Amino acid sequence: MSKLVALYKQPADSTEFDNSYFESHLPLIRKVPGLQKTKITRFTRSLGGENYYLMAELYFEDEAALKTAMKSPEMAAAGENLDSFAKGQYSLFFAEES
Amino acid sequence: MSKLVALYKQPADSTEFDNSYFESHLPLIRKVPGLQKTKITRFTRSLGGENYYLMAELYFEDEAALKTAMKSPEMAAAGENLDSFAKGQYSLFFAEES
Repeated sequence: MSKLVALYKQPADSTEFDNSYFESHLPLIRKVPGLQKTKITRFTRSLGGENYYLMAELYFEDEAALKTAMKSPEMAAAGENLDSFAKGQYSLFFAEES
Repeated sequence: MSKLVALYKQPADSTEFDNSYFESHLPLIRKVPGLQKTKITRFTRSLGGENYYLMAELYFEDEAALKTAMKSPEMAAAGENLDSFAKGQYSLFFAEES
């Protein structure tokens, strides 16, 4: 399966981040066409290296579906929303899960 | 579920990394007591932010099982092996998947 992976750095205020992320961002993501599954991981402790707070994995049937989703107005709206509270605080990847 | 997440930076030689990772490291990881599932993600494209190559997620029943695994001689052997080819090239986390 193909997925879009977002890694979020530790925010200054995690309560505020959680509110924005779960109350406004995720509902927009769930409207993206072709999205089959969403998985959220909370990092509870860093044992060395970077310090991330959260990871979101958005699953699509294949890379074509992921690429179509990236060009959708729903994804544009979700991205705009994300940048309103987490600009510069995340890394984004295309990925394949075996 | 609790998991140990490893994020690997893009290696200088990905063929060499893959050989070491899949032929020597993963077999050692699979011996770790309490490990229930292993999931490998390949990052195929970075859309901004960090540039990672691979992610490994090692699943355990709960945080107690993960902590026990971290103290095991099998995990020590796997960690030693990892540092023989990827020292300083990875970040490691405890995480919870909802």
